[in-house]
Amino acid sequence: MTKIFAYGIREDEKPALQEWATAHPEIEIDFTSELLTPETAALAQGADGAVVYQQLDYTRDTLAALANVGVKSISLRNVGTDNIDFDAAREFGFKISNVPVYSPNAIAEHSIIQMSRLLRRTKPLDAKIAKHDLRWAPTIGREVRMQTVGVIGTGHIGQVAINILKGFGAKVIAFDPYQNDKLAAEGLYVNSLDELYAQADVISLYVPGVPANHHMINDESIAKMKDGVVIVNCSRGNLVDIDAIIAGLDNGKISDFAMDVYENEVGLFNEDWSGKEFPDAKIADLIARPNVLVTPHTAFYTTKAVEEMVHQSFDAAVAFAGGQTPETAVEY
Amino acid sequence: MTKIFAYGIREDEKPALQEWATAHPEIEIDFTSELLTPETAALAQGADGAVVYQQLDYTRDTLAALANVGVKSISLRNVGTDNIDFDAAREFGFKISNVPVYSPNAIAEHSIIQMSRLLRRTKPLDAKIAKHDLRWAPTIGREVRMQTVGVIGTGHIGQVAINILKGFGAKVIAFDPYQNDKLAAEGLYVNSLDELYAQADVISLYVPGVPANHHMINDESIAKMKDGVVIVNCSRGNLVDIDAIIAGLDNGKISDFAMDVYENEVGLFNEDWSGKEFPDAKIADLIARPNVLVTPHTAFYTTKAVEEMVHQSFDAAVAFAGGQTPETAVEY
Ligand SMILES: NC(=O)c1ccc[n+]([C@@H]2O[C@H](COP(=O)([O-])OP(=O)(O)OC[C@H]3O[C@@H](n4cnc5c(N)ncnc54)[C@H](O)[C@@H]3O)[C@@H](O)[C@H]2O)c1
Ligand SMILES: NC(=O)c1ccc[n+]([C@@H]2O[C@H](COP(=O)([O-])OP(=O)(O)OC[C@H]3O[C@@H](n4cnc5c(N)ncnc54)[C@H](O)[C@@H]3O)[C@@H](O)[C@H]2O)c1
Repeated sequence: MTKIFAYGIREDEKPALQEWATAHPEIEIDFTSELLTPETAALAQGADGAVVYQQLDYTRDTLAALANVGVKSISLRNVGTDNIDFDAAREFGFKISNVPVYSPNAIAEHSIIQMSRLLRRTKPLDAKIAKHDLRWAPTIGREVRMQTVGVIGTGHIGQVAINILKGFGAKVIAFDPYQNDKLAAEGLYVNSLDELYAQADVISLYVPGVPANHHMINDESIAKMKDGVVIVNCSRGNLVDIDAIIAGLDNGKISDFAMDVYENEVGLFNEDWSGKEFPDAKIADLIARPNVLVTPHTAFYTTKAVEEMVHQSFDAAVAFAGGQTPETAVEY
Repeated sequence: MTKIFAYGIREDEKPALQEWATAHPEIEIDFTSELLTPETAALAQGADGAVVYQQLDYTRDTLAALANVGVKSISLRNVGTDNIDFDAAREFGFKISNVPVYSPNAIAEHSIIQMSRLLRRTKPLDAKIAKHDLRWAPTIGREVRMQTVGVIGTGHIGQVAINILKGFGAKVIAFDPYQNDKLAAEGLYVNSLDELYAQADVISLYVPGVPANHHMINDESIAKMKDGVVIVNCSRGNLVDIDAIIAGLDNGKISDFAMDVYENEVGLFNEDWSGKEFPDAKIADLIARPNVLVTPHTAFYTTKAVEEMVHQSFDAAVAFAGGQTPETAVEY
């Protein structure tokens, strides 16, 4: 009987795990909440594959310990593979898979919800209501449908965001060096980022954090935007020069900002800093502003996305165990 | 030169007022932030019409005082006319107009934003972030697109809400005794409220608060809903029995609730209770819950809606002054 062992299983993953197990009675599964380390590798003994998800590095030692108990495949429940020692993995003959597309909607929805909240000024309104000030003026909202929204990047997530914005009745303009035929036929694309900056009331980013895009939102690009622009970044922290954003918020050029990602988020996000010395003064400042919404890389964090991450990774582990190459295999 | 005098002008209305004035140089306009009362009526002396907006009653005394300075038309910047003494108005020969449709999108957008925030659990997540707890688990969200959303009432506002929900990719079902042909052709309607209650993960109300709909959401109808249902009411407070909602929240039958309206909202909403004795323990309890979003009748409160309310009321006042009957004239 094929056996799969999973590491780092969180409470919120258990319903999806249970669902998969029920649908696959022919597979034995076991799991731990612990992460995969040289010490915990032995837990997978007897398994035909390991399913994993952690920020912690998959080091040579870790991979050696896993290979040592006979496990030669790791199936990541997430996308990122930069914490894997690929040289060691090659040496030990590991097969690796990830989950590159789990739910573009999770991220797209979050970005538009945060955008519409900024437009509607829900943060200052909620704060008033929480202290029992039930006056509406002067906290007036703007309607999504009245905005020209500039979508930068029309890949998996950007396309879903565009559909949501169309439902609201917003005017969407987009820029991507690789145009999508359907969107091009609709005439949604402008010819340059400069054109998008000049026309958009709201700008939302859906592009990868590759070196070419590093700090694409900076003093210079912000200067090209409309006064009072609203900016949303749920993609990668390094896309924006956060000092330029803060300067724009301070001088009013940027009216509102939402961020789910931050250039220095590793070791900062997904930690509990309450009652402790907060390590980053900029984030503390951003969190406190009434016209800024910060979320700690939670755009992906939906029941549907978690279900996909669990199901797809287990499917891949079973495929590896059966000598097949799953669609989500990582070539390295 | 035709002159229009406006009462109760708020700061947030001034841009729209200015815009209208610029577009109508042939009309003289003047205004006050004060409400229309027997005492302030004289301010309108010399005007051909009054533009008004207040919760305060338009009493016989008030109307008499206005008629006394020669003003015989009042153009409401809002919908509701129940605070007008129509007998007195008839006696003095007043022409009256209101603004029945200013921006269905303002209300529809707000209802869907609040709905998506409940699904995404932004209130508990925001609270964590505000105290620098940046861990995402266990505050996992649900995606709008995975929900079956039951829309009750497919008039002006319900139809806009449906378009937004479709953009998200949600499954929409609807009920209205008067079906809209286009939506009917799409097969969106179920045959009864009971069917809607049985199928919907999320229920949102877009119906008038007429006597037949009084407390339509009560213990009995809630019992017919799915366990863990999400309910949104941005229409009228008397549509829901708030005690039944609170009971449902307490026993878990209702997972989340958003309300922009409240049966006893007059004299409660649009007042500042901070630092004062809060008059309503139920509202205080609802405001404090992590799975409830309360807004004090602000769904309508957008720059676009305010612009429409100001522009349409001034247009009507000018029409009355010219002996015409505007489309928005109130028959009484
Ligand atoms: N916040 C989260 O939880 C979360 C989760 C998953 C993904 N993401 C991020 O979302 C972003 C989009 O992901 P995706 O799956 O849609 O990617 P994708 O590869 O499907 O699409 C990216 C698109 O961006 C375009 N692009 C690249 N550089 C551009 C530029 N300078 N200007 C305009 N377009 C450009 C590409 O041509 C491509 O079409 C990525 O940065 C990804 O890391 C965030
Ligand atoms: N929160 C706010 O700021 C705000 C502002 C404006 C309007 N509203 C409220 O929004 C609601 C909808 O307004 P609208 O402009 O769309 O009205 P509308 O008259 O255009 O549509 C209402 C629809 O509800 C249907 N209906 C009536 N009773 C029903 C029932 N029991 N079940 C199903 N359908 C039923 C009617 O047939 C009609 O199609 C009203 O209650 C209105 O008072 C709230």
